[in-house]
Amino acid sequence: MSKQLHLNAFLMSTGHHEASWRLPESNPLANTDVEHYRELARIAERGKFDSVFFADSPVLFSDVGRRPAGSLEPTVLLTAIAAVTSRIGLIATASTTYNEPFNLARRFASVDHVSAGRAGWNVVTTAGPEAAKNFNLADQPAHAERYERAAEFLEVSFKLWDSWQDDATLADKESGVWGENAHVRPIEHVGRHFQVRGPLNLPRSPQGYPLIVQAGSSEDGKGLAARYAEAVFTAQQTLADAQAFYSDLKARTAALGRNPDGLKILPGIVPVIGATEAEALALERELDELIKPEYAREQLARTLRVKPEDLPFDRQLPADLPDEDEIEGAKSRYTLIVTLARREQLTVRELIGRLGGGRGHRTFSGTPEQVADAIQEWFDAGAADGFNIMPAVLPSGLVAFADHVVPLLQQRGLFRTEYTGTTLRDHYGLPRPSGRREQDPSKSLQEATA
Amino acid sequence: MSKQLHLNAFLMSTGHHEASWRLPESNPLANTDVEHYRELARIAERGKFDSVFFADSPVLFSDVGRRPAGSLEPTVLLTAIAAVTSRIGLIATASTTYNEPFNLARRFASVDHVSAGRAGWNVVTTAGPEAAKNFNLADQPAHAERYERAAEFLEVSFKLWDSWQDDATLADKESGVWGENAHVRPIEHVGRHFQVRGPLNLPRSPQGYPLIVQAGSSEDGKGLAARYAEAVFTAQQTLADAQAFYSDLKARTAALGRNPDGLKILPGIVPVIGATEAEALALERELDELIKPEYAREQLARTLRVKPEDLPFDRQLPADLPDEDEIEGAKSRYTLIVTLARREQLTVRELIGRLGGGRGHRTFSGTPEQVADAIQEWFDAGAADGFNIMPAVLPSGLVAFADHVVPLLQQRGLFRTEYTGTTLRDHYGLPRPSGRREQDPSKSLQEATA
Repeated sequence: MSKQLHLNAFLMSTGHHEASWRLPESNPLANTDVEHYRELARIAERGKFDSVFFADSPVLFSDVGRRPAGSLEPTVLLTAIAAVTSRIGLIATASTTYNEPFNLARRFASVDHVSAGRAGWNVVTTAGPEAAKNFNLADQPAHAERYERAAEFLEVSFKLWDSWQDDATLADKESGVWGENAHVRPIEHVGRHFQVRGPLNLPRSPQGYPLIVQAGSSEDGKGLAARYAEAVFTAQQTLADAQAFYSDLKARTAALGRNPDGLKILPGIVPVIGATEAEALALERELDELIKPEYAREQLARTLRVKPEDLPFDRQLPADLPDEDEIEGAKSRYTLIVTLARREQLTVRELIGRLGGGRGHRTFSGTPEQVADAIQEWFDAGAADGFNIMPAVLPSGLVAFADHVVPLLQQRGLFRTEYTGTTLRDHYGLPRPSGRREQDPSKSLQEATA
Repeated sequence: MSKQLHLNAFLMSTGHHEASWRLPESNPLANTDVEHYRELARIAERGKFDSVFFADSPVLFSDVGRRPAGSLEPTVLLTAIAAVTSRIGLIATASTTYNEPFNLARRFASVDHVSAGRAGWNVVTTAGPEAAKNFNLADQPAHAERYERAAEFLEVSFKLWDSWQDDATLADKESGVWGENAHVRPIEHVGRHFQVRGPLNLPRSPQGYPLIVQAGSSEDGKGLAARYAEAVFTAQQTLADAQAFYSDLKARTAALGRNPDGLKILPGIVPVIGATEAEALALERELDELIKPEYAREQLARTLRVKPEDLPFDRQLPADLPDEDEIEGAKSRYTLIVTLARREQLTVRELIGRLGGGRGHRTFSGTPEQVADAIQEWFDAGAADGFNIMPAVLPSGLVAFADHVVPLLQQRGLFRTEYTGTTLRDHYGLPRPSGRREQDPSKSLQEATA
């Protein structure tokens, strides 16, 4: 069997196109409708996707006029979905800057228990000053500080997940001894950001650890991914950029003594699928015409740290934008947008159209055959271990992918026709951590999961 | 129709009797088995209970030898149960000392959304130095400090839940305006413990606020309950004590300008039910004989802040125990235990037997008729608005109550034969908060919910 690709369905209310909620077919209140998300997860499971994924940030961006705003807390949402599915992996974002490791490690372990081993955690440091203001802070901690905290947060989490050995539970009714005290141990973590005694108040979960996912592509983000991540979501616009990112991150992973196959790289793709190419392009055009450019310009201005009036619609971006080094949040997103605009010499209006479709991710409109080709091209060319599928419209875009693109990938021998395991780690071909790490804190993650 | 009583099912692994896991019928790994809890919730719903409830603390008490230890994070557990039930209310404990209001308010609002209005939050301040050590602290904050933080935590939560008006969502596809910005507003909370800008990143939930429950019976606890709670769980051993607690708390509630009917008082009862009284007593005896007294004595010593060797099994408690004033955590539990032991002149061994059955709650063994009588007596005598039912053994004790005691209460006209509403607030006969509170922060909760 040839090398297999991995598919994650990145789900977001009515779809990734910012105007998708305005289509006649869309439920504009889908963002808080648990049945909507259950339906999406069932479709993805029917398509044998590895996993579904929900992004998150503990803040409401101020403009609710523009598009569906606000969302269910992701670990709650994953749990609600777990109840109506049996195989598909369940990944959500949670912030290391605005959570406590004891609470969050327990929550993901709980999701892993109730889903029988299907939980994954996309570890983010949460960019932007707005979120900080919901958590007693006037501004976000500096970028490097947030990443340092993230690394320690993960170390504490690993220790907590390993604080119960797999064999800690005896359940010996006869002797009246329920658990083996020697196999449930405090972690006594004392670090720069956290002091956590432990143990966790929950036996070890089916997967040991949830799958660790990472999505930031700044230098600090790539460093964190190389050290800890098992899957990476990334936004790449061109094959050459994606290849460079792929090689770089695999090399960084190997340089830390990890097997680079233990980290799966999944660039995002926003497919707009039609029975014919013309149909796909017509849907793309319909969506773009529903964008309200004033709204989009305001968000672009916020990201670029300029005023909306500094961005006339029919001009290119101003020449004197700040360097990435000066940006304290969302560094890689900032660079991606500026690079895209400069490389293709886009006007602000054109840039808004490109971003409206996928917020900087690769967009692709075409027939199922063309979408399958686009995917295979990058996969064969060493740019991806799989893809983060971001349908422009939901549920219809996911239905089109699952029912028309997936069968082509299966025919080409690139994708599973049935699940061969039951856990999220099984789907990604990743081992269950042994739990021996806690017993020797000097061990790296790689050694522990070997 | 005569006044109706309310029933909450307090669920805990294999039951409230600490030796229940050792019975042949028990699943000793029930504490992490989501299917076990789903079955219990379905039984309670079949019995038309108002709600189920899960206690929680963000810490593992050190001795896993004694009984099932560790539990699923409660908002995850409530969500997992919501998926297989349609009416029963879903209440869980969460700590105001070891959470952030933005995260927790969102989580309960999310549970309220996915359950279509069935969420309740038991607000606790988390007693004991052990939990503090999981959250960067060497010891717990002082009792008064914890309660001050709890009050501010609740104020912030109310503001966040009201930060979206009910009519904020327009979903106007034609004009392309999804939400009304003027109806989604920052809360700009600046207090002693919290600075939270808001708004919440989630539209207002079906109930507006989750039901607010409180369970501490110290002076500070009663003060918090009188001001904010809509239901109170309490441990009372005698009718006279329960009547005194009931009158006191209702009077405190009225003194703050609230309608005392807006706060429902539910003492706990641990029923051991048999087809005959002899059968019930035999089951109680079987359970008590399965207790390992060394384990129980260690926990008692911890609660009383003495050494285990200071508590010989066949003597009464030492005379020189500290005053409640000197206890910084779990004040009301401390006083309850000491009062019980002194009043009934119990030896340590006898006290352990009494606590092993219900940890200080009223225990009662008998036929369904006798249990119904015990409940009606307190209800008619002005000691309770309902009861917190704490089966000694699960699921069998809940089955016995739902299928044999509930029908008697229904025949007596004391309890619903069918749900008349769909939300948890409906079941308890409590109004949905209007959400106008946020617009006038000087308004009391009572005015806002009037």
